[in-house]
Amino acid sequence: MALEDYFQPFSQRDWEREDVDGTVRMAVVGLGGFALKRALPAIAAGKYCETTTLVSGSVRKAATTAERYDVEHVVDYDEFRRGEVADAYDAVYVATPNALHGEYVRAAADQGKHVICEKPLETTAERARELVDVCADAGVTLMTAYRIQLESTARRTREIVADGYIGEVVQVYGGFSHPVLETTSPDTWRLDPDLAGGGALVDLGIYPLNTTRYLLESDPVAVNAWTCSLEPAFDEVDEHVTFTLRFPGEITASCTASFNAHASSHLRLVGTDGMISISAPFGGVVPQNVIVERGEFSVEYTGNPDDEVEEEFDYFGYCVLTGTEPGPSGRDGLEDVRVIDAAYESAETGQWSDL
Amino acid sequence: MALEDYFQPFSQRDWEREDVDGTVRMAVVGLGGFALKRALPAIAAGKYCETTTLVSGSVRKAATTAERYDVEHVVDYDEFRRGEVADAYDAVYVATPNALHGEYVRAAADQGKHVICEKPLETTAERARELVDVCADAGVTLMTAYRIQLESTARRTREIVADGYIGEVVQVYGGFSHPVLETTSPDTWRLDPDLAGGGALVDLGIYPLNTTRYLLESDPVAVNAWTCSLEPAFDEVDEHVTFTLRFPGEITASCTASFNAHASSHLRLVGTDGMISISAPFGGVVPQNVIVERGEFSVEYTGNPDDEVEEEFDYFGYCVLTGTEPGPSGRDGLEDVRVIDAAYESAETGQWSDL
Repeated sequence: MALEDYFQPFSQRDWEREDVDGTVRMAVVGLGGFALKRALPAIAAGKYCETTTLVSGSVRKAATTAERYDVEHVVDYDEFRRGEVADAYDAVYVATPNALHGEYVRAAADQGKHVICEKPLETTAERARELVDVCADAGVTLMTAYRIQLESTARRTREIVADGYIGEVVQVYGGFSHPVLETTSPDTWRLDPDLAGGGALVDLGIYPLNTTRYLLESDPVAVNAWTCSLEPAFDEVDEHVTFTLRFPGEITASCTASFNAHASSHLRLVGTDGMISISAPFGGVVPQNVIVERGEFSVEYTGNPDDEVEEEFDYFGYCVLTGTEPGPSGRDGLEDVRVIDAAYESAETGQWSDL
Repeated sequence: MALEDYFQPFSQRDWEREDVDGTVRMAVVGLGGFALKRALPAIAAGKYCETTTLVSGSVRKAATTAERYDVEHVVDYDEFRRGEVADAYDAVYVATPNALHGEYVRAAADQGKHVICEKPLETTAERARELVDVCADAGVTLMTAYRIQLESTARRTREIVADGYIGEVVQVYGGFSHPVLETTSPDTWRLDPDLAGGGALVDLGIYPLNTTRYLLESDPVAVNAWTCSLEPAFDEVDEHVTFTLRFPGEITASCTASFNAHASSHLRLVGTDGMISISAPFGGVVPQNVIVERGEFSVEYTGNPDDEVEEEFDYFGYCVLTGTEPGPSGRDGLEDVRVIDAAYESAETGQWSDL
């Protein structure tokens, strides 16, 4: 297959294999910045989901949002748990602080509702595994909200890798930094270990971790990590993290994440026959700039950004409507939390943690 | 200082501070591919050195080269050690297999000659330290041949970093891969641990290692490394290596090198206020493509390649003629070998090696 063919059409929805009627009615649980700025507009713009219910600690504040997106119901967390308007939604998007995911995923599963849950799935592997089991027992779909997996750059790259276009992958590099205090106050739940489960690794490092697993279609066998915090705001969680993953076939991935560095992300895969470099893969709006080298050739592709969040919710809706198990499943989310647990253990012991 | 000012003029020889008369007459010891294809042409093209003596195991083969570069003397290794034409040269370029560096550096120092020695300085830190001491005792200059340190991209980047333009450096990424068997036979000394002192780490990994030390003006405090070999040709040395360096101030550098992957190199520094990314810094002819980001701005500089080897030999000649201690000194070379020793120890123990 010629390289151009992977990129044409770049933004094809390869997952959309059949015509589907109907819409998945969504309850959005937790109205933080991402839910307000990205998820609600994406659900409204997409074709398979619609928001019928908002769940918020501040019902009054949520009313403005409800009006803006023409949402019928606004309930508080207690009312949601009791399923007071459960007839109004088929599925639940859980976008609360990480340590509260379990509570709302469980409530949704109890109500027989499908779930798309923000990453990380939970704060420990044990808690994440419970959610996978709860949803399996209830027979509802559980998707972990890895938006990158629905982004065309990642999907096309995965095809190029799977076809062996760059030979066997040897070494991967991935990094994601975001100066969290420039957009959030220091009392954000993201810097509270009980609510977040960790710091830069949990919130940002999970992107190169999950994306590398996605692109290699493989899970790491060991991890070595090092964390540090310099500024007082990061006293209780890792401000910076540097970790190395070892995959089967002796592939390594060298990853970093930082809560207190210039906003920046990159991903690079070096194989025996070629190389793929993706500019800014994790930052939210992916510029779809990809360089692929093989032998003496270097090809640069520059496309138009997708709205990866719209892709993500349409994919979730499609999976629910067709009874398809989502690619970024609950088990996928669980696996990352397992690796994160092992990485923090490695940072403590100074040794590799086997997985 | 405005960013443009760092890049204008890009290829300034900031080290050339005074007018200097005279030429350093060079003996080139070991006529491998790099000496023939890069060093001899660079010395001929430059202004401070000239080659007067070739030292080779095959005097007959060297005669053609001598004619081509108008070189007066050709001697074999024994004749060189005995100093038979020592009056014809002021300095010696040692470009033999790594484990033989010591022998010829020592001979040169005994003859009172200045030395520029290929990297790594020697195969172990103990042996490298002896060379530093021998040259110090003899009162001769010892430079380790780190061509990147004389390359404009690296020099300008170092200034940008030192001025704090990207804030405090947080995380560094560097990688260098070169499919050694595409250009060399499997019986190359580079795959013989006794002659080379190691594999991909020693031959290629030393570039991101030394360049990161150079750019940060700092030495690592600990290293964690992992090596592997898959192909039989690499049975005795590391085919691939992935290592993490920790520097003072909690800076980390995530580095890789491979003897058996697509030819590729990159270097990226993420700081608190900005980011610098250098395309292909180590591959031999640096494209001088640098992207610098700070805040909302991104500036890309694309210059004309220097001949970094010509820069390197002119710098060495200038240092000898002016009695200046070279930037990439013997101690600089020793430090990298110390880190390499510690990295191999880490790869054995699975733990961080302190430095």
